[in-house]
Amino acid sequence: MDRRLKIGLFGFGTVGQGFYQILQEQQLPLEVHRICVRNPHKERPAPQELLTCEARDILEDPEIDLVVEAISETEPAFSIVRESLLRWLPVVSASKKMLALHLPELLALQQETSTPLRYEGAVGGAIPILHLLDEPLRHEPVLSLRAILNGTSNYILSQMRQQGWSYAHALQEAQRLGFAEADPAADVEGYDPCYKLSLLALHAFGTALAPADITRTGITGISAGQIREAEAQGRRIKLIARLQRDAGGSLQASVGPEWLEPDDALWGIEQELNGVEVALKYSGPQLFTGRGAGARPTGTAVLSDVLKLMEGRAYAYPKQEKRHPIVVA
Amino acid sequence: MDRRLKIGLFGFGTVGQGFYQILQEQQLPLEVHRICVRNPHKERPAPQELLTCEARDILEDPEIDLVVEAISETEPAFSIVRESLLRWLPVVSASKKMLALHLPELLALQQETSTPLRYEGAVGGAIPILHLLDEPLRHEPVLSLRAILNGTSNYILSQMRQQGWSYAHALQEAQRLGFAEADPAADVEGYDPCYKLSLLALHAFGTALAPADITRTGITGISAGQIREAEAQGRRIKLIARLQRDAGGSLQASVGPEWLEPDDALWGIEQELNGVEVALKYSGPQLFTGRGAGARPTGTAVLSDVLKLMEGRAYAYPKQEKRHPIVVA
Repeated sequence: MDRRLKIGLFGFGTVGQGFYQILQEQQLPLEVHRICVRNPHKERPAPQELLTCEARDILEDPEIDLVVEAISETEPAFSIVRESLLRWLPVVSASKKMLALHLPELLALQQETSTPLRYEGAVGGAIPILHLLDEPLRHEPVLSLRAILNGTSNYILSQMRQQGWSYAHALQEAQRLGFAEADPAADVEGYDPCYKLSLLALHAFGTALAPADITRTGITGISAGQIREAEAQGRRIKLIARLQRDAGGSLQASVGPEWLEPDDALWGIEQELNGVEVALKYSGPQLFTGRGAGARPTGTAVLSDVLKLMEGRAYAYPKQEKRHPIVVA
Repeated sequence: MDRRLKIGLFGFGTVGQGFYQILQEQQLPLEVHRICVRNPHKERPAPQELLTCEARDILEDPEIDLVVEAISETEPAFSIVRESLLRWLPVVSASKKMLALHLPELLALQQETSTPLRYEGAVGGAIPILHLLDEPLRHEPVLSLRAILNGTSNYILSQMRQQGWSYAHALQEAQRLGFAEADPAADVEGYDPCYKLSLLALHAFGTALAPADITRTGITGISAGQIREAEAQGRRIKLIARLQRDAGGSLQASVGPEWLEPDDALWGIEQELNGVEVALKYSGPQLFTGRGAGARPTGTAVLSDVLKLMEGRAYAYPKQEKRHPIVVA
């Protein structure tokens, strides 16, 4: 009898392929059993017999134990995650926008179906920040959080400073290297870090913030002159995501460019790297840095969640008030 | 019936008191049931009836569920941990020197007794590096590791650079602020980071390295002139612990001062902070930074391990070759 856990994979782009390839290199009791793609005739680095373009070939296959959803579009990503949970299939998702926009429903669905959903790869890429908040730091009240969550913007700002490039030229280079999409708005207008911050708000503070409730400024207004002016003052401009409570205890969330001083913990996070700094009640400040995107960094985060789901481990959402429903802002 | 987990605490110095005080602030189903100290008549910030000077008042008490060992001396720390495991009492230990010197025996004892021992607080203080290697990064081969593991040395080197102080004066200040012991040799001669590196070698590479097998240089030979010379070159001197494989695949370990360049990931780790950079096969470089010592940072790491032991979770030691005994160098 085959004891290997069978995964149904939706989407075979950057993240899906990264996850699939890492799995091939590992000696683990799990395998990708089926891959659902939009166009099953396109050449893919996986055996043809694994491919399908019918979602039901995964969702209705009684052999599938677990779903990995790595589709870039919010639809059908949400429908697939929803349908999987309703069929008691644990899910790992990497779709940050979909997760952020549907968070309250997805939390309710997890509770109703007693079926877990994990999504580490949707926040800090390879940085295991959700895991950290959920397990070793679960008993630590989070006082505030500051982060660099968008590798594309961070790369553009680093290159403008180091090479003296204009914003337009730096963006072009980022696109050429594959760090930025053809339509870069989600990154450079700050939407992408808002989605990630929305997920972090739930895990760090127990509050499900809608992305639209986050004050947002992107980097499109940053000129080469401002970069030079910051440099002349011994400072660096970076796109910073923030979560902190105001005097009344309400959670405030923002994403926008800030002029950092050299002693700032996020100062040295350059190029396409991401970083999350959390101020904790007992241990003080902690900083976690790593690659926030890319096939293998995100693929390894997905695998990490798959291994947790094999242990039956759902997120504990430990920062929520105990025995109270999740606060939906 | 009282369902609270009962802890027997050995040692009530910095770490023991930090752990005890954090527990008082938390709503958790566990309590310190007994505290074993050397002198039970000294004034302590805990109820007198909890105190004892007899180890057997903890080890032979059938009500005790779990032991926290926070004694600074290698003996009786080792005997207490050993005795606890032989009595099937799970243990959290913060005694890095004892752990490093007795690692092979302690691994064998865990296997023989099927009783877990955890020791996060003995390595990076508040930084959950062992947990990270054991769980979210368990499937990631570690290519190399570099770290700042001694807060005292890092504080002294930072102050020499920023204030222009001599080594002797910076050490004096560190002692005055409580960052350095009256006998500072363990810190400034590099023994302390060797103990920690020995534990990291096991968790990152599956090899139990004796501290004596680690090439060691401290910071006592660093002069104000060298600090100025490094500064003039745009570099910083820091005490760096390293683990990497040589061309033949053998694990090489060293602790010694290095002249860092500004783009080094460890460059910005200043004062008493610690940091661990791991180069991972799939996710690339990750950096974890936080307080490496102190009552609350270490106390919170101990609590984190206690919570893991409440789940029955032993270290998986995932980097060891599967089904092979631990390599003892």
